[in-house]
Amino acid sequence: MSRPVLDFFFEFASTYSYPAAMRVGALADAAGVTVRWRPFLLGPIFLAHGWDDSPFNLYPAKGRYMWRDLERSCARLGLPFRRPDPFPQPSLLASRVAHVGLAEGWGEPFCRAVYAAEFGEGRPIGEERVLGDLLESLGIEPAPALAHARADDIKARLRSETEVAQRAGVFGAPTFVCGDGELFWGHDRMADALAWAIRARS
Amino acid sequence: MSRPVLDFFFEFASTYSYPAAMRVGALADAAGVTVRWRPFLLGPIFLAHGWDDSPFNLYPAKGRYMWRDLERSCARLGLPFRRPDPFPQPSLLASRVAHVGLAEGWGEPFCRAVYAAEFGEGRPIGEERVLGDLLESLGIEPAPALAHARADDIKARLRSETEVAQRAGVFGAPTFVCGDGELFWGHDRMADALAWAIRARS
Repeated sequence: MSRPVLDFFFEFASTYSYPAAMRVGALADAAGVTVRWRPFLLGPIFLAHGWDDSPFNLYPAKGRYMWRDLERSCARLGLPFRRPDPFPQPSLLASRVAHVGLAEGWGEPFCRAVYAAEFGEGRPIGEERVLGDLLESLGIEPAPALAHARADDIKARLRSETEVAQRAGVFGAPTFVCGDGELFWGHDRMADALAWAIRARS
Repeated sequence: MSRPVLDFFFEFASTYSYPAAMRVGALADAAGVTVRWRPFLLGPIFLAHGWDDSPFNLYPAKGRYMWRDLERSCARLGLPFRRPDPFPQPSLLASRVAHVGLAEGWGEPFCRAVYAAEFGEGRPIGEERVLGDLLESLGIEPAPALAHARADDIKARLRSETEVAQRAGVFGAPTFVCGDGELFWGHDRMADALAWAIRARS
């Protein structure tokens, strides 16, 4: 029998996607669940809500709370935390490189490296040289990966993943989608999503 | 030494305030924490965000998810669930009656009765006769309680509690505020809030 599968929709500009990305692999392995990493863009989905910026910037009380809550959550989980400035960081190029990596077998460690740089060290992950550093640290040659990230197939892939997310009912990140279409939104629901994926499968 | 105190800000129109209200008493008792029940109105706070309706109505994908997530959460917690229609229910009168009850010693069971009627049975808690039924079921004479709910002192009390909540940084419900000002938003953070209240106190 094949393992249950859980779709992990995430966005590099999303704060709570950071702890989710750092933790989902180990938790899914322990649960016997296969995770499909699906980076997408929240921008088009937020625009459909009439938001041209992160809701954490548009609603300052909510934003202040989120940063404090994220800091507390990271401390509890033993994850380093440093707030990137500006927020949100431009996530388009990193998302495209991630799709190159997911096709070539180095996508998951690259995604973790991006999140660790962005929210663990506060580094500007919108910059090509930063992504190049991260690729080198993983033993990937930066130039061809970055060139492929700008090719039409990868651009189309990111667009279609964003459309798939929106059609599945995704409105924020991280969102976990089980094989039966059940949605779980937020790092807080990651364990519930893994448990559901197992039940839905059996 | 006095017990640690946790402020519980909630709104009768708020969906996730339902499981919080039904559970906070027993969890706080077990933790040795005193909970101050503080009903307030989200309407003025949402208006400051430019929202003239619940965000769960303004953003349909988020709303669809919330109802499903609430149903799942209630099932897991063994709480009955029935979606009230229309949503949100008008919460002004129930909030004022709650403040009468909190001054007279029957506030907490009244608040639980309102939530159980609204989200456990789908009853229209904006209607005076429904609130009257709930009062009677608690052995409270409805007429004087409802008359007091419309008096100036109670109206002013609800307004000032809403202002206190807003100044404390509250932007949604339920929100828990510890003695040192630390905020925890959402039913999901209730256990964290209780733990923080104990640490902040000691």
